[in-house]
Amino acid sequence: MSSAEAFAKAAKTAFEDSQLITSKERATALLCIRDALQSNKAEILAANKEDLKAAQIEVDAGRMSESLLKRLDLDKGDKWDSMLQGVSDVAALPDPLGIVSYAKELDDGLELFRVSCPIGVLLVIFEARPEVVVNIAALAIKSGNSAILKGGKESNRTTLLLAQAIAAGLSQSALPATYIQTIQTRAEVSSLLALDQYIDLVIPRGSNSLVREIQNNTRIPVMGHADGICSVYLDESADIEKAVRVVVDSKTDYPSACNSTETLIVHESLLNSVWLVVGRALLEAKSARSPPSPAAIRFINTHSSHHTDSIVTESHAAAAAFCRGVDSAGTFVNASTRFADGFRYGFGTEVGISTGRIHARGPVGLEGLVIYKYMLRSTDAKGHVVGDFGAGGKQYKHANIAATLPF
Amino acid sequence: MSSAEAFAKAAKTAFEDSQLITSKERATALLCIRDALQSNKAEILAANKEDLKAAQIEVDAGRMSESLLKRLDLDKGDKWDSMLQGVSDVAALPDPLGIVSYAKELDDGLELFRVSCPIGVLLVIFEARPEVVVNIAALAIKSGNSAILKGGKESNRTTLLLAQAIAAGLSQSALPATYIQTIQTRAEVSSLLALDQYIDLVIPRGSNSLVREIQNNTRIPVMGHADGICSVYLDESADIEKAVRVVVDSKTDYPSACNSTETLIVHESLLNSVWLVVGRALLEAKSARSPPSPAAIRFINTHSSHHTDSIVTESHAAAAAFCRGVDSAGTFVNASTRFADGFRYGFGTEVGISTGRIHARGPVGLEGLVIYKYMLRSTDAKGHVVGDFGAGGKQYKHANIAATLPF
Repeated sequence: MSSAEAFAKAAKTAFEDSQLITSKERATALLCIRDALQSNKAEILAANKEDLKAAQIEVDAGRMSESLLKRLDLDKGDKWDSMLQGVSDVAALPDPLGIVSYAKELDDGLELFRVSCPIGVLLVIFEARPEVVVNIAALAIKSGNSAILKGGKESNRTTLLLAQAIAAGLSQSALPATYIQTIQTRAEVSSLLALDQYIDLVIPRGSNSLVREIQNNTRIPVMGHADGICSVYLDESADIEKAVRVVVDSKTDYPSACNSTETLIVHESLLNSVWLVVGRALLEAKSARSPPSPAAIRFINTHSSHHTDSIVTESHAAAAAFCRGVDSAGTFVNASTRFADGFRYGFGTEVGISTGRIHARGPVGLEGLVIYKYMLRSTDAKGHVVGDFGAGGKQYKHANIAATLPF
Repeated sequence: MSSAEAFAKAAKTAFEDSQLITSKERATALLCIRDALQSNKAEILAANKEDLKAAQIEVDAGRMSESLLKRLDLDKGDKWDSMLQGVSDVAALPDPLGIVSYAKELDDGLELFRVSCPIGVLLVIFEARPEVVVNIAALAIKSGNSAILKGGKESNRTTLLLAQAIAAGLSQSALPATYIQTIQTRAEVSSLLALDQYIDLVIPRGSNSLVREIQNNTRIPVMGHADGICSVYLDESADIEKAVRVVVDSKTDYPSACNSTETLIVHESLLNSVWLVVGRALLEAKSARSPPSPAAIRFINTHSSHHTDSIVTESHAAAAAFCRGVDSAGTFVNASTRFADGFRYGFGTEVGISTGRIHARGPVGLEGLVIYKYMLRSTDAKGHVVGDFGAGGKQYKHANIAATLPF
């Protein structure tokens, strides 16, 4: 068995063995991990210093950007404390498991429940920031999924020690220490992508090319988190102040974020009025390209990445047509595209922003990491068989019942 | 442009152009299709006779099974009428689109809605029965997706005429005639699997090898509908009558169905009691293999296909552990695995039974063909920008609001 296969098999076994572990035990495991991280803070930050030193050499040689180096630093500002606080926050979120979304009585004494449950084994691949290991581990544990994590190679020393602390925390809990594992090489990722008997979902967070490369090399479902190409459309009824505020914020609040705006579409009637003011406001901040188009919806559907698009308008009809007609994960009215974010949406946490159209779309919270199963219970004295139904036999009732699990 | 690419592009355009078409217009389109099918009944059944003739030659030569031939026949019993009734039934189902599943006020005058919407362009590949073209076309139209359909080559003459009638029906409606297209060759399927810029979801309904072959050859998400390996576990507290009824029904009600049972697991304490009676009842019907196992949950998780598994037990604790511990789309108590079915579950229709773990699991109704988008509306006099929030600025409210769309 290859080492990748051993990882994958251990993850699947850890997942299956933890089906009966309660929500309370999961929350306790998260607090154990937080404590283990805090106990090992000195060693982890020392390893992080080593990663930073190696990265500085790469920066000096022009092989790495200064901004990537900055993202590696785990000791910057309140980063360490907010990483630990994030673990506590996830522990305190409502349990996403065991939620009944469909409940019907199919027959007297035959009850059907659709119940949320974990997906299985996640393979999560991300770049740069080492604290993502801790974030994703917390999300996986809370949502009942086991996970194999691969960070950027620049942070290998840090993520190794973070992973050891996570395993130490898990060993104090009801969950197996193999519930969260980390790998360090691309070769291991390649091997894991072939193991669809063990791995249920691949979550790549990074560039379009990373997501596409993974999609090309696995039959495992991929929940891609790639770049956004977002648009703002200034409708003919746009309010001038809203236009300026929304465009400038969408474009300049954090230009390298996936939810910042790339494309501005201006209704031609505004070219000598609103556009001049918006253009001036943008020039004072950054630059924008403006393909004016009377068919804004068609233009956006053809050219956007279906991430987030916004319209500035005072017309209810234009807003309605835009929100329904634009085929994107987020369709906004008089609001900046930068609102597309799990925390801002109120999810309490964020796995990332899915650019896929299956399972979870847009900002992904814990809900995006669960699926459901159907539980069917007969309380009839003879049990239930389909042979009793149909022509000349019983008919299905399909009556609504309380969405309360009997077990 | 290849013919496959022309199909795919036309489907995407048809999808995008129909975003604003109402639920009522979709229902009308379905009734137009039903009428067009009825008007062309004679020609369609004549083509079906040709398919049957060609198939008979294959059967006589030993190259096709008798049962496949039977499934081709569109004029058998009430098949034609129930195909048309199915279209009317789907038209009458509740609209799966526009349903709000999350509604929050992020700030005064900033409302967020998560609204169900179509996935996009579906590529549906299935085998044998020609009426599936009509079923799937109806489901796609109702759920707002455009679709490209590929049936079995044995029914090419029939499906061609069915497709023409569907297009004729669509041309009487608000939907474009290219909303539903059919293709006839494997080469076209291969070409389409490369076109992830146009096609959003592939739904193969057939053998494990069909599903796997498609997963190996596309980066488009695949919602597989493959074979099931289902289990029944007779717990030590199993009631003897329930055991006999559930096992015999699960195994023999329709042995070739994906939800019939392959594996029977018997608690060792029952070997000289319940098992003898169940075994005799099965011998009177069919045969079964019985790997007795004290660790039934582990056994099922390792060997089942995670489709549907049932326990026969009088113990509440055993039922609870089984339902939560078995990692399958259906976990049943004292009920036949044959209940795993969209109609029996009360969905009113069925796309198939998904053996995947992402997006839709188990029997798939219209809900499985939709995803959602987030609509965000600012009613503030100045619009909303994220730059106003954060340290020293505004805080997010995240208050629940009515799940009623403003447009």
